[in-house]
Formats: sequence, structure tokens, C-alpha cells
Amino acid sequence: MKKEKVVLAFSGGLDTSFCVKYLSEEKGYEVHTAIANTGGFSPAELKVIEQKALALGAASHVTLDIEQEYYEKSIKYMVFGNILRNGTYPISVSSERIFQAIAIIEYAKKIGADYVAHGSTGAGNDQVRFDLTFQILAPEIGIITPTRDMTLTREYEIDYLKKHGYEADFKKLEYSINKGLWGTSIGGKETLHSEETLPEEAYPSQVTEHEPRTLRIAFERGEIAAVDGKPYADKVEAIRAVEAIGAKYGIGRDMHIGDTIIGIKGRVGFEAAAPMLIIAAHKMLEKHTLTKWQLYWKDQLSTWYGMFLHEAQYLEPVMRDIERFLDHSQENVTGEVELTLRPYGYTLVGVQSPLDLMKTDFGEYGEVNKAWTADDVKGFTKILGNQMKIYYNVQARNGKAKK
Amino acid sequence: MKKEKVVLAFSGGLDTSFCVKYLSEEKGYEVHTAIANTGGFSPAELKVIEQKALALGAASHVTLDIEQEYYEKSIKYMVFGNILRNGTYPISVSSERIFQAIAIIEYAKKIGADYVAHGSTGAGNDQVRFDLTFQILAPEIGIITPTRDMTLTREYEIDYLKKHGYEADFKKLEYSINKGLWGTSIGGKETLHSEETLPEEAYPSQVTEHEPRTLRIAFERGEIAAVDGKPYADKVEAIRAVEAIGAKYGIGRDMHIGDTIIGIKGRVGFEAAAPMLIIAAHKMLEKHTLTKWQLYWKDQLSTWYGMFLHEAQYLEPVMRDIERFLDHSQENVTGEVELTLRPYGYTLVGVQSPLDLMKTDFGEYGEVNKAWTADDVKGFTKILGNQMKIYYNVQARNGKAKK
Amino acid sequence: MKKEKVVLAFSGGLDTSFCVKYLSEEKGYEVHTAIANTGGFSPAELKVIEQKALALGAASHVTLDIEQEYYEKSIKYMVFGNILRNGTYPISVSSERIFQAIAIIEYAKKIGADYVAHGSTGAGNDQVRFDLTFQILAPEIGIITPTRDMTLTREYEIDYLKKHGYEADFKKLEYSINKGLWGTSIGGKETLHSEETLPEEAYPSQVTEHEPRTLRIAFERGEIAAVDGKPYADKVEAIRAVEAIGAKYGIGRDMHIGDTIIGIKGRVGFEAAAPMLIIAAHKMLEKHTLTKWQLYWKDQLSTWYGMFLHEAQYLEPVMRDIERFLDHSQENVTGEVELTLRPYGYTLVGVQSPLDLMKTDFGEYGEVNKAWTADDVKGFTKILGNQMKIYYNVQARNGKAKK
Amino acid sequence: MKKEKVVLAFSGGLDTSFCVKYLSEEKGYEVHTAIANTGGFSPAELKVIEQKALALGAASHVTLDIEQEYYEKSIKYMVFGNILRNGTYPISVSSERIFQAIAIIEYAKKIGADYVAHGSTGAGNDQVRFDLTFQILAPEIGIITPTRDMTLTREYEIDYLKKHGYEADFKKLEYSINKGLWGTSIGGKETLHSEETLPEEAYPSQVTEHEPRTLRIAFERGEIAAVDGKPYADKVEAIRAVEAIGAKYGIGRDMHIGDTIIGIKGRVGFEAAAPMLIIAAHKMLEKHTLTKWQLYWKDQLSTWYGMFLHEAQYLEPVMRDIERFLDHSQENVTGEVELTLRPYGYTLVGVQSPLDLMKTDFGEYGEVNKAWTADDVKGFTKILGNQMKIYYNVQARNGKAKK
Repeated sequence: MKKEKVVLAFSGGLDTSFCVKYLSEEKGYEVHTAIANTGGFSPAELKVIEQKALALGAASHVTLDIEQEYYEKSIKYMVFGNILRNGTYPISVSSERIFQAIAIIEYAKKIGADYVAHGSTGAGNDQVRFDLTFQILAPEIGIITPTRDMTLTREYEIDYLKKHGYEADFKKLEYSINKGLWGTSIGGKETLHSEETLPEEAYPSQVTEHEPRTLRIAFERGEIAAVDGKPYADKVEAIRAVEAIGAKYGIGRDMHIGDTIIGIKGRVGFEAAAPMLIIAAHKMLEKHTLTKWQLYWKDQLSTWYGMFLHEAQYLEPVMRDIERFLDHSQENVTGEVELTLRPYGYTLVGVQSPLDLMKTDFGEYGEVNKAWTADDVKGFTKILGNQMKIYYNVQARNGKAKK
Repeated sequence: MKKEKVVLAFSGGLDTSFCVKYLSEEKGYEVHTAIANTGGFSPAELKVIEQKALALGAASHVTLDIEQEYYEKSIKYMVFGNILRNGTYPISVSSERIFQAIAIIEYAKKIGADYVAHGSTGAGNDQVRFDLTFQILAPEIGIITPTRDMTLTREYEIDYLKKHGYEADFKKLEYSINKGLWGTSIGGKETLHSEETLPEEAYPSQVTEHEPRTLRIAFERGEIAAVDGKPYADKVEAIRAVEAIGAKYGIGRDMHIGDTIIGIKGRVGFEAAAPMLIIAAHKMLEKHTLTKWQLYWKDQLSTWYGMFLHEAQYLEPVMRDIERFLDHSQENVTGEVELTLRPYGYTLVGVQSPLDLMKTDFGEYGEVNKAWTADDVKGFTKILGNQMKIYYNVQARNGKAKK
Repeated sequence: MKKEKVVLAFSGGLDTSFCVKYLSEEKGYEVHTAIANTGGFSPAELKVIEQKALALGAASHVTLDIEQEYYEKSIKYMVFGNILRNGTYPISVSSERIFQAIAIIEYAKKIGADYVAHGSTGAGNDQVRFDLTFQILAPEIGIITPTRDMTLTREYEIDYLKKHGYEADFKKLEYSINKGLWGTSIGGKETLHSEETLPEEAYPSQVTEHEPRTLRIAFERGEIAAVDGKPYADKVEAIRAVEAIGAKYGIGRDMHIGDTIIGIKGRVGFEAAAPMLIIAAHKMLEKHTLTKWQLYWKDQLSTWYGMFLHEAQYLEPVMRDIERFLDHSQENVTGEVELTLRPYGYTLVGVQSPLDLMKTDFGEYGEVNKAWTADDVKGFTKILGNQMKIYYNVQARNGKAKK
Repeated sequence: MKKEKVVLAFSGGLDTSFCVKYLSEEKGYEVHTAIANTGGFSPAELKVIEQKALALGAASHVTLDIEQEYYEKSIKYMVFGNILRNGTYPISVSSERIFQAIAIIEYAKKIGADYVAHGSTGAGNDQVRFDLTFQILAPEIGIITPTRDMTLTREYEIDYLKKHGYEADFKKLEYSINKGLWGTSIGGKETLHSEETLPEEAYPSQVTEHEPRTLRIAFERGEIAAVDGKPYADKVEAIRAVEAIGAKYGIGRDMHIGDTIIGIKGRVGFEAAAPMLIIAAHKMLEKHTLTKWQLYWKDQLSTWYGMFLHEAQYLEPVMRDIERFLDHSQENVTGEVELTLRPYGYTLVGVQSPLDLMKTDFGEYGEVNKAWTADDVKGFTKILGNQMKIYYNVQARNGKAKK
């Protein structure tokens, strides 16, 4: 009898290691492991993961390299929209999960899998991201989640693996760390208590530079184009370059307190030098090159876009409509931004752009100018005040005082 | 023949000094000077201004003390709304102008003035704020603006005053500095060029503290209630206390690039330690005590509120409606926030609040918990995905692939 | 041994009749039936329902009269917000369910019930409204839903009742009709097919008046105050008066195609003469008495308020914040509106209000006027165009043509 | 000496007739008249206008036919957005003015005119639409507005023309009527008084059909594609076909009370059968084919788009960004809608579309179905209520009762 095929989203961690053994040996599935790399893993790490998978008895293992796709379909729009969840958090882990889920399910369809499995527990956001994406893109493929369904302890899992002939060093780390291209999240200990913050040593990147430094980031139609004058065709490389510079200053650390998909408040620390510097620079460039109402509406749509991305709703069709708005809004977002980096912080110095709306043949703010007269502004103000004048006139006639 | 009365908004600067002389001697008005203090002037400064006014020939001079009113009607709501224009600028000077204009026009009505005068030029936002507020609250009182109408040079004005027997040291400052309770703006030189930023020495407050320091700010229904454990009934004093601490670290400096009321882009530097620290702390407390949708809608309304406040539309009736929303939203915003200050920056440490939504009898994020099961989340996810599943099902039936 | 107490939301229909028998005889609970009347039932109907409950073996039965509360907490705000879901549907049944759920669970708490039961099936919105409200307001009380859990057929239920000695005429109606104070919904047959509409005879109210008629509705601070000149202190009575007039004209019929809480599209017919006429009149009065931005933001908040009300989120705290905004916005919404009714339709004639912003000492639209000159408008237009002039100037300098 | 060239937007009415004579004979300009036809004029009317222009002494006259452009750039988006200003008014005259202004100024640039002239008075919206568009697209061309600047009476103008040898029948009409492709506005008499409405005879189209009739409108990606089964490649013709049918029923009459660009309230009657029927049909089709959040955000952006279009801000760059969103949102808006027309009204019958989200392999609303179980909905509801449960739990622990 032919075995049923399962594609397992495999990270090399304890939970998914348990799943390989459990699903193949105890449940009799043909387990094909896969890891979708959005940029958080090095080639060396990916090699180790592959070896683990095969050692655990996976029928096959594959690395799905989706860095470029992740940039093109997600990071790009997070920059266009200056997206920081709750004004703070560059939607890193949560957006990566979506694209990992898409890659995994597409792979499962490709190899004709009967099931897809993931190792998320029943307590967080990731299970929703995986389940939802899997169900939408392949309703015909069943979902298997042993760790969630069995609520096993670490000890049980380690013991189980040992009994089945697999031994490895699954040491419990003090913090749960998720490294990604667009930021690294750090959870545990202090993050569980509203009154505490992470200590210096909890951050993977430590401050090694203490002298201020200038950084120049150039954009072309909203996309990062050059770093310190060096052009980048590969945007992922550009992000890595900014990260390498900023991380040494401990830039982009903060605590995200947010509403999870399942309705409870969650708190997590993160470090994200590149996202913070790139978004800050991009946002300032937009202040110079976009009109007031473009800024206003971009902000409205981007806030929503970020929320939906965070909450596993990336596949909702309105997201594609919003992307068209964002694409078009970036037409004039071209120029170079200068920043000064310092330990734990940065200053935005200024912007150079041929499309800078401050560089005009018309008057500059605060100057007497060529394009209008004082009388024009008087007329403007009179008409601008019309409705309020009428309102207070009517109020007064009805014996109501100004509030 | 009885002279016509003018109330002149008097700051002691060159433009309004010129106005006193010009309006009284050349135009034959009875000039009553008034200064509305929203908290930017010390008693000593106010005394000097009074002496100048009388020396220049004002028929009377009055200081209108509106600090408390300004806090109650404006700063309070800027904190409730975490209002930073363009995500950056605590609407300081622009909001003060409105309340100064209101105080001046009310005074003009009280003493039965025929005219009200101000010294704004024809190039900025302030003329709109003064004219609009004056016209709305007293359409029957005429507005006189000699400096705007005559577009005079500094030299002409100094010369004119000298000829009319008034000499003073009107030295041209390198920067135009506007000190207020809710921030100090610094304009000129570098701020006129998109690519430059203000040098260290342009900031009135210099960094004198270099060792990190803890700061605790407590809120009661959204209003600042205590600083480092010391309760403040007088909120203006509390703001001054935070400012005194933060200014020594150079906190709250930035550059605002914004859209002026008259449609051009303007750029100005500012320092605002108290607004930045208070708003950051308040915002974090809200993340712990408000629901996701309260945060969402507060943000929507506050962004608009800030824009209208900035753009001289404070008297628009929708502002009063929004204030009722904001008032009610603060019901549970009670607790203490801890920050760590460093030169040029700060870190939000944590929050203590009996109303913290993370402190619940239900589960914590990331933990297996008592309030729901893995099956509940599975059901949740299934139903949550219904519309998207239907959408992609219909797309597939119509031969359209997923985008 | 003491029996456990269940409070059952009882409507007298087949499902809840089954529940009484099943829960008391088969499950051994002490079943206390309750019906919360939001205005959809007459005293005679309520009497019949009570008799049924007792005949079925309920330990007690109570009618919770919440008409006035329902008006005060819900209809009032739906009028303030001119709330029509998807621009069409006066949120009738869905809003009533929430207040019925609140009344039932409060009653259950009052009599110390161990459980609360309802007869909703697993396919619609009502189960969510009941479950959610019950869980939030009394997490300690369990929820029992036999019809949902057992998915029984009508035949089975009728048979079961017969076997347990209860016989009644549970004839299957062609349409499922839900009568309420704020509208009657009609589901079934044609409503299940996107291309069909309800036939004339499916509507409970038939057109009996064919001659046009004038109707005058007066509002006081947004609340209905008089109908055809007759003042109403009891607003529920005023609504009934308008309904009695409008229903004879077949006014307020339409089809609602909406998104259900569970994500699928639903389609239902309705008739709602009073809601349509009252909201149309109220909305026109607002156009005369509110400013442009009050109308804009009221609309934003009301659309959301209506959505959340519809989707069982009435208890979300942001709803209370929005209500404060809406309350205040109604301050000037006072006046009388005249309409002309015709079979199946109506025309808004006009408005009389002392607070009409068209009745001002300033100019009227289209007239040369006293408050401003042609030059003022020229100046206004110049300044209004500033940002766009700058934008196209910069575009041209960069060799980009106007789009 | 060479005469300076003026392009005059000429309608054949009294004001612009006066302008031809006044500008050519009294001011010595070479006057080139032009009329931009967005679809409101018949060939015969345009011929008469041309003859008048030449008889008055225009150096040349041209008809700029911009019907198709007006459809493509404006009507199309008003349908995509279901745009009705204040929920009532299909932005007809106001949107046409913008495109007329664009055509006129492009023509002026083409023939190298020194000035452009229009006949708007100083009291309405149109002057802003013309001035703003002219200034933005050709800041180098001066604007001349004799009627606005001189505030002349009708009698004076008629007399002046007579003295200069031009006599015509400029009878004062009872109502000022503006006929356009997207609706006809009717101003005067009753529209000036809040309490009155237009009498039957004021409407250009009179009711001639009394028997109900079925109308079918088909859409392809949001654009009208067929009427009663007859396909239309020329969308302007399709609109005319719907208008011809609907006008006989007196459909689409209403009164618009709105906020003018200059801040005062304005009131105008209109008839617009085609816009009302097309938008109603399109909107219902969207309810079937778009997701909840597409409908929500489309509505947000469209409301703003309509406001800006109405208020002369069509050239604001955010409008182009919004158009991209709207374009993409129409991808699935394909299908046919059936309506029943009656005198003064219509009923939406239903929709046929292969992309109807009600036609799915999943369950239908109200039915027990295949895609989820009652337990799934229970789980959904539990998780959906999490944040509110937590909120009320925290409230209770703090001794606060539910509000």
C-alpha cells in the first residue's frame, strides 16, 4: 500500500524534529521536509537543517529560496507604506510566515502531497498564518499539527526522539529568537512582564561602534537604490548592507506591544536596524516629494495594509488593490537621504531630490514671494473661514455662545 | 474727536514695536497692546515686554495669562491623541497661536476695540491663524496688519522707530526662535535647505547630562498625574518638570517638514523634550489599556484633529465632537510608565497599570491557556478564512489564477 | 438532588419549543424561559408565547420588556448615524438580537442560572451574537444550544414534541419573517437566488394608499420629536406612528446583500418604512445644520458603528467612544423635515430649522454677496492651488508631462 | 501693433456674449472663442453657438469634442466608485467643468494665447474650477473675467450688446438649467429656499411612461457593456440609451444640499436617470463580487475622490493614485443586473455573474453546510470575543461595571 505524502514545514527545531519522527514512524506517512528561506538563514544554517531532516528520516528535504520574492511582494510594500505596526514594529516575523506558508503549500501541491504539516503551537499567531494560507490556496490538502494537537512538553519530545534513535542538543534558550531579513524578534522573560524591558545582552547585535557616522540611502521610485553612494540592483543585498552598518550602533531596538490575531495583547522585543533606517529615510523623502493628501491617504491605506499583513490576511483581494495605489504613489519618490548614526539612535540630516517640492520656482516658506500677494492670502483666509463664520453667526442668532 | 481703539498683539519684537508707533503716531489710533502668554514667557520677560509697550506709546498694556486654559483646551487633547504632526512635530507654536488669537480677540471685544492688529507677515501660517480666529469670533472688528501690507525691511523699521524717538537693540538673530510650553521651534539658515540640518549650537537647550537616568511618568485618565512619583495637580508644572529633566539630554530634537496652510512645504527645527517623553509614555500606556479598535479610531481622529489644529481650524465644530470621543477614550488610561533617558534619546522600559489588558485571568500570549483550546483556534481560523476561500474558489472556477 | 437551572431564550417557534422539552425532560434541567421584547411583539403575541412555554413544561416564563432601552441604546444612535448597512439595510434584526442577548444573560445572572440556552442553528449570524454576548457578560455561565449541536430536522423536532405530549401547528412558512421595531426581514425562496427578488405578496405590509401624502417629521437634537406636528415624548410610539403611515405606501422595501459575520455573503429582503423615512429626513436635516467636516466624520464613524453593531461587536469599548462623538454632533440637529409619500417611494421636500446654515446673514450661494468680494475668491483660488502649481512646476522641470 | 490673443470659453449665453464684444471692441484683444463639449450639447446647438460667436466678432471659433475623454477620465471612475456626493448627487456639472477647463487651456496653449477668459461670476464654484485649472496647467497665461470683475446686471449687458450692434433673444429663464451627459442641474426659485422643492414642471424630462418595465444593464470589469442585452462599445452611447429609458419614468430626480468650495451651503435640483440607474446597478453587482473589505475601502477612497472632483482638485496627484486602486478593484465586477422601473423609482431585482461570491461550492447563508461545523463557529466566536472578554474581566477586577 502506498504511503500518504506529507510536506512538513521544517525548521530544525525541537517541535518540527519531533514531527518528522512522529509522522513517519508512528503515523506511517512519507514525510517530505521543506524550509522556505525568506532571508533569515545562512547557507551554512540551511545545510545543517537539511542534514537534520535527513537524519531524522525525511523522505526528501528541500530549501525553497524565496528571498527575492519576499522582497518583491512584501518588503517593497512595507517600505512604500512606511509600515510600522502600532508606530513601532517593522512587521518582520509575521510577514515572513505568510510567504513561507505560500511557498510550502505551493511545493506541497507541486509534489502532489496529501497533507501539509507545521509545528506551531495552539497559543500564537503563526498557526493562524499557516492554517489560513494553506486552506485558501489548497483547500483539498489536509493540515496536520501534532504539537498543537498533543500539547507535548519539551522533555517528552526530547525523550521521544531519543527513544527513536535521534539525539541532538536541543538546549532551551533563555529567549526565543526569530531572525529574519526584515528584523529579529526576541521573546521571553522580560517581554512577558509589562513593566520590564530586555537587558542589553539579550540583543543578538551588540553595540561596537561609538563614533557618529554618516549614512546615505538613495531611493528610486520608492525602492532602495544605493547605500553610501554604492548602487544595488539586488535590493536584498542593499538591506543587508544597511543592517550591517546600523546593527553595530544598536539602532532599531524596541518593544512591540500589539494585539494578536486571537485577540490577546502580546509583547515582544526586536532589533531591526535596516527596517528602521530605511523607513525613516524613505518617509522623510516622501515628505519632500509627495503632496499633503498623498501623504494622508498613503498613511491610511498603509496602516490597514500593515494590520492585514500582520493578521494573516495577505491574500485578501483588497491588498492587491492597495498595492496598486502604493505602486503609483512612488512615482516621484526618488532622491538621496542623509542620516547621522549614533549608538542607539540616528538623526535625519536632509534630502537631495530633483523632485523635492521645496525646490520650486515659487516662493519659499516664510519669504515674501513671487507667486502671490498678501491680499491673496487675505482673500484665501476670508473664504476659508466662511463656513465657520456662518456657523457661529447662526449659533449667535440662536442665543448659543461659542464653545 | 474720539480716537479709534486698536488692540495690538504685542510681542516686543521689531515688527510689533513698529506697529505701536506707526498706528498711534502716524494713523492716530489709541493703541492698546496685549500679550497672551501660553507658557512661553517668564514673568521677567513679560515685565520687559510691558515696559517696551509703554515706552513705545501704548495707551495701555495687558498680559493675558492663558497657560491653564491652553493646557486644558489644547495640550490635554494633544496628549490624549498622541498628536505628532507628520509623525514628528508636537504641534507647539501653531497651537499656541490659536489660543493667543482667541485671548486677544476676546480682550478686544471686552474693551470695545474698533480694530485688532497683529504683526504677522504675508508669507507664513500665523497670519491665517490670527485673521481666521479674529474674523470668526468678532466679524464686526476690523483687522489691521501694517507689516504684512507694507512689506517693510528691518532697516526701514529700525530707522522709523529711531526717527520717532525709540531706540532699542533689535539685533538680527541667526535663527528665529519661538519658545513655547509645548516646544521651541528654530527656523533659519539650514532649515531653508532640504539637505542640511541644524548644528548642535542652534538648539537653546544643550546636552549637559551624559549618564542614563530613569524617568517615571504617571497618568490618570490620560492626563499626566505624577513625575518620578511626585504628584502634580498643576499639569503645566508637571510638563515643566519633565522638560527640565529631558532638555538636559537633548531629547525631542527633530526637523519638521510639513505642508503649510498656504500650500507650500515648510521646514523647521524644534526641540520638545516634554512633549516627546509625555506622548511616548502615554502612547505606550494606551497600547496596554485600550483595545485594538480604540487605538485604531483614536489614531484616525487624532491625526485629523492635529491637522486641523495646525491649520487654524480649531473652531470648526467637528473638533468639539472629536474631543468628546477623546475624552471618553481616556477612561482607562491610568498607570505609570518608566523610561530610560540617554543623550539624544530614550527607551521605553515598561508600564504598571491596574487596567493593563495583559494582566488578565485569561491566557498570556504564547502560552497554552485556560480560556480556549487548539480546536477553538482551528475553528476560528476556518471561519476567518471563509470569504477568502470563497473568493479563490470562485476565481478558480473562472479560470483565474491566484495573484 | 437539586436540578441545574437553565434560562432559555424562547420565541415560541419550533426550535425553542423543542429545547424546552428536550432540556427539561431528557436532560433534567429546570428550564426557565424568557423572551426579550425589543418591540417586535404585541401584548397578545407575548401572551401566546407565555402560554406555550408553560404548556411545554417551563418552570417559569418571563417577558423582558426592553423596547425603551433598545431605543435609547441602539435606535437612537442608528438615527444619529443615519446607519444603513451597505447603504441599504437599517440594521434591524441584527441589532435587536444583541439587546435581547443582553437582557437574557442579565436575567440569567439575576436568577442564578447555571446555563443559558438559545435555539440558533450553526449556519447564521445569530449564534455568534448570542454566544459572544453571553460569554462576555457572564463567562461563568455555560451555553447550551441543542438545535445547533444536534442539527435536527423539522420533522424530527415535531415528532419529538408529539411523543412528549405536545402538539401544535408548526407549519412551515414560505418565508422566514422576523418582525421588529426597526424593520421586518423576509428570507427564503427568491432571496436565496442572486437573480430574483421577492414578489409583492411576500411583504407583510401591502400597499393600500395610492394618493400622495405629505409627512412632516420633526427632530430635537437629532431625536424624533414630532410627527405631522404631533409631539411624542415616547420615541417608540413616534416610530410606530411613522411606520403606520409609511407601510401603507410600501415604502422602505429593499434587498440587503451583505457580508455575514462568518464570512459568506447573505441576501435578505426587508421592509422598513419608519427607519427609511426617519433616516432620510434626519440626514437631510443634518445637511442643513452640520458643517462639511462634521458630516464627513460622522459618516466615517457611523459606517463603522453600524458594521460592528451588525457583527456582534456592540460591547467593544470603541462603540462607547463613538457614541460620545455622535451625541455631541446632534447638538444643532433640530428642525422639521417635510416629505411627500407615494406608493413605493418618497420625495424629500425641504427643511425648516432655526439652525439651518443656509439661513445666514452672509451671502447665499450663487448671489453676489456682502461677506466677500470677487478678489477674495481670486486670492483664495490662488492659494488653494499653490501645492498643485508647485507639483506641476517641479514635474515640468523634471521633464514629466501632466497626467 | 499685434493684438494680444484671448481664448474665451464661450457658451452662447449672455455673459460670454458680452465678453466677446467687450474684449474685442473695448479692450482690443483678438478673441478666439471655444466650447468644450462633454456631451451636454447636440450638434445643432453647437452650430448655433458657433454662429453666435462669429456674429459677435470672434476671430475664430472652435468646438472641442471631449465626450470620450470625459467618459474615460471621469465618468468611468464615478461609476467604479459609485460616487454620489452626500449620498445623493452624481457629480455632473461640477466634473464637466473641470474637463472643459482642461480642454480650453490646452487649446489656449496650442494657439499661443496670451490670455484665457471665462464668464463665471464671483459667487459660485465654477470660477474656482476654471481659475485653478488654468493656473495649474498654464501659469504663464493670464486669466480675464469681465463679468466677475465688473459685476454687471443683465440689463446692462443686453444694452451694451445692442449698442455694439448685436441683438439676440436673451430671455431670462425661470430656472438656470445645466444639461450634461451625467445629469442636468436645475437651480432657482424653490432651490433657494430650504423648505421648498421644485415643481413637476421644472424638470426638463417629464414622466411619459407609467407601466413598469424591466431594464438590464451589463458590466464588464466595472464598465457598462450592454443595455437590455445590446452591447455597446461606445460607452457614451450606452449612457444615452439608459438615460432615454429612465428619463421617461422621471427617475433620478432629487435635491442636492451641499457644501460649496467657498464654504457656504448650496442647494440645487437635478435629474439624472442614467447615473442613478447605472450606479445603483453597479453597486449591487459589486456587493455580489467584491469582498467586504474591498467594498469598505473602495467606499472610503471614492467618497474622497468625489469630494475632490467636486471641489476642483481633480489635478491633485492623489487622484491618480486613487484611480489605480479603483481600476484594480474592478477586475471581477462583471455581470448583468436587472432592474424594474416605475414612475419616479426603480427596484433592483437581481444579479447574474460568474464571479458572484454567493455562487460557491461552499455553504450558502442560513444552510447547514459542507465547509465548516457548528464547533468551528463556536471556536470562532470564542476567539473573536477574546479581547472583549479580557476587557470586561479587567474592568470587573477594577470594580467597574459594564457600561
